[in-house]
Amino acid sequence: MPSPAPAPGCANVWRDQMRVYLAGPDVFLPDPLARAARLKACCAARGLVGVSPLDALADEPADWANLPEALRIARRNEAHIAGCDALVANLTPFRGPSADAGTVFELGFMRALGRPVFGWSNMEADFASRTRAFCGVAGETDPDGMLIEDFALGDNLMIAGAILASGGVFTRRDVAQDEIWSDLAAFEICLDAVAHRG
Amino acid sequence: MPSPAPAPGCANVWRDQMRVYLAGPDVFLPDPLARAARLKACCAARGLVGVSPLDALADEPADWANLPEALRIARRNEAHIAGCDALVANLTPFRGPSADAGTVFELGFMRALGRPVFGWSNMEADFASRTRAFCGVAGETDPDGMLIEDFALGDNLMIAGAILASGGVFTRRDVAQDEIWSDLAAFEICLDAVAHRG
Repeated sequence: MPSPAPAPGCANVWRDQMRVYLAGPDVFLPDPLARAARLKACCAARGLVGVSPLDALADEPADWANLPEALRIARRNEAHIAGCDALVANLTPFRGPSADAGTVFELGFMRALGRPVFGWSNMEADFASRTRAFCGVAGETDPDGMLIEDFALGDNLMIAGAILASGGVFTRRDVAQDEIWSDLAAFEICLDAVAHRG
Repeated sequence: MPSPAPAPGCANVWRDQMRVYLAGPDVFLPDPLARAARLKACCAARGLVGVSPLDALADEPADWANLPEALRIARRNEAHIAGCDALVANLTPFRGPSADAGTVFELGFMRALGRPVFGWSNMEADFASRTRAFCGVAGETDPDGMLIEDFALGDNLMIAGAILASGGVFTRRDVAQDEIWSDLAAFEICLDAVAHRG
């Protein structure tokens, strides 16, 4: 069975404005609502509607109120993604050489829906370099003898491959260490690509 | 828009045997083909067909031969997942407190297809405990001031939530440190749940 075809174009033919799901560990920042507002403002400046994981879900099923909080959040985020035309992920390495796990899950979810996925990162070094630095090795394997994937990509090949196959871009750019979670230049470059895609 | 409904049952009504995609960083082990054979044997013992990311794709489009290797692997794995009835992921923490990024992508991908996803891990400690240990902190935030998600789950809530919502299970079990990448007891318990689901 072939993989999902690359999206032939954004689904915004039936909407006035493209809706973009803003995936990322930004929800863990000290003031996540202010952060979401900043990201959405960048979207609005380009005629895009940014959708944050923190947004209320307009038509949330009443019985979700009975779910444990974590499961309700998971369902809501899946519904937000399903209601968007594209996904833009903050793939800045998070507590290890790869991006935040929740963000990566969401990127895979949107990819399976056949819609375009985009990524940005405030670290330019490629995945292999970051993994070697994390493991403290210089060769092809880590201390457990496990292979270090080395294709000069921005993260694991499933992530980078999905972005490319879907017609998205993955923008990476170094910033000052204390601006890793505040600098938005790579995000804005990525959003420009989203806005020019439609 | 509601999230995808939990799969009402495995798709094996139209197949003799349920096909199970075996996601995990096992592909990075020193002898990944031997590992895949071992995982597949565990599946076969339960009447399941294990599908490895390393398997050839029967009907691979001829023009994929022109793709760079990493992108061809990504497309092939997406096609393998789309051709399976369920996914079982090795979610043992990998180079950080979360599971391998490629594995997490694949789990999100299968979840969006509405089919059941399962996970197993050779580390019993919950995600918050592992994250605190990784960051060297005891409180609610990491040294960057970012929140540590704490819902007593096995990994990020998108992962654990998808497994539960899809009707899967997430089996976690401690093993000796030097058997983290060889012990298969948690995998076999997980496979029992897959086999009894159909």
